[in-house]
Amino acid sequence: MKKQHSRPNILVVNDDGITAPGIKNLIEAVKELGNVVVVAPDGPQSGMGHAITIGKPMRFNKVDLYEGVEMYKCSGTPVDCVKLAVNKIFKGKKPDLCVSGINHGLNNSINVIYSGTMSAAVEGAIEGIPSIGFSLDDYAEEADFSHCLKYVKSIAQQVLDNGLPQATLLNVNFPKGNGIKGIKICRQANAKWAEEFDERQDPYGRPYYWLTGVFQNNDKGEDTDVWALDHGYVSVVPVQFDLTAHHAIPLLNSWTFND
Amino acid sequence: MKKQHSRPNILVVNDDGITAPGIKNLIEAVKELGNVVVVAPDGPQSGMGHAITIGKPMRFNKVDLYEGVEMYKCSGTPVDCVKLAVNKIFKGKKPDLCVSGINHGLNNSINVIYSGTMSAAVEGAIEGIPSIGFSLDDYAEEADFSHCLKYVKSIAQQVLDNGLPQATLLNVNFPKGNGIKGIKICRQANAKWAEEFDERQDPYGRPYYWLTGVFQNNDKGEDTDVWALDHGYVSVVPVQFDLTAHHAIPLLNSWTFND
Repeated sequence: MKKQHSRPNILVVNDDGITAPGIKNLIEAVKELGNVVVVAPDGPQSGMGHAITIGKPMRFNKVDLYEGVEMYKCSGTPVDCVKLAVNKIFKGKKPDLCVSGINHGLNNSINVIYSGTMSAAVEGAIEGIPSIGFSLDDYAEEADFSHCLKYVKSIAQQVLDNGLPQATLLNVNFPKGNGIKGIKICRQANAKWAEEFDERQDPYGRPYYWLTGVFQNNDKGEDTDVWALDHGYVSVVPVQFDLTAHHAIPLLNSWTFND
Repeated sequence: MKKQHSRPNILVVNDDGITAPGIKNLIEAVKELGNVVVVAPDGPQSGMGHAITIGKPMRFNKVDLYEGVEMYKCSGTPVDCVKLAVNKIFKGKKPDLCVSGINHGLNNSINVIYSGTMSAAVEGAIEGIPSIGFSLDDYAEEADFSHCLKYVKSIAQQVLDNGLPQATLLNVNFPKGNGIKGIKICRQANAKWAEEFDERQDPYGRPYYWLTGVFQNNDKGEDTDVWALDHGYVSVVPVQFDLTAHHAIPLLNSWTFND
């Protein structure tokens, strides 16, 4: 893909909802790089993964939150937002870049698969748009994103200038606070959540359950996103949506099925 | 993983909901192979992808639908069902096999990423359980699954006997009707949905949108799941949840960031 010569069109999405401070910071960071259009959920959609809305209809409305920024809210999921943006706003003329976030909370390692922020970026890539998801190691509503902004701009500019390899996108995570040592290109750490369910009783004596969990990383590799973040670096993981485990095909071909 | 010598424990999940004919057929197919426990959503959860329920609590109750089968319904997503099963029922002693489906509708190609059925199987694999998702090329409630059952048993038995390579699972799709030619091990076809949104007006004059779309396959490879299904074969794709695009790491390391 060649360097952009006209002012690029940039689609901004997230999963924390259109009023989240994270998306406001992301808009600030990229609006100098191109024409920004924002399509974001009308409320929090964290943990929605790659969900789409197929059993019920969606609302989709223009809103006026930040001066000079074209913005739309959607009752659907983060992935729905990307689909609506491509179909109803850009109408087949794809944006030059899709950025998602900045998420309140990390999306490193296996979290890429649960994250609405990352799934929106994955959907951008499926649509053929160079796409990046950004996340910060701070779940707080009042999280400080200021130290992320120069990295967001620099990485977005690189992607606008160079494009991305076909069918890949970037998963970018920021450590909390200042003192970032630089950017590391990483692989996804092989870690997982150990779930616990907090069982409570409703006022009528019936049980209900809150999902909680502990993040368990047994991957000691120094080339992982977990390592980079633990050591003060911005982690950048190239992500793909071909889920085929190509290496397993020869083994499966050696199996004998009773068919 | 070695051959099972005691009777294996089999977790059965789906995304069409606990009363779907597809899961009833799946239970029938695998109950001869081991002790079956069913945990399924209390209603349809198609297209939920890898969503988890984190903003609200869940209900989780034992139900008695089919004689002699231990069954639970859950108000959460297909992925929640797997997490609840592992944590609340198996309590750390993992099942020997997790099977998901049989889905009413194909989950070949890129559909693996939108599908609740496949995401439940992916979650099983993340939990370290050998896992398989099954889907049939028929969306109808009254779909005929009878021709699938011997393949379900055969593939499940192979996985019980041989295990699966670490961090992989199987995505199995069936053509509609009889006359299946056999099983083909495949890669995920490089196809996507071209979305269209059906815009309507509610009784108050406000617009709402239904997601619709057309499946577009430009991948002519004869090693794909789309090709196999089109030619009367059962497609079996090994799937992984490490989304790292490892091949893109050297290129990204050549970029210069303004950091």
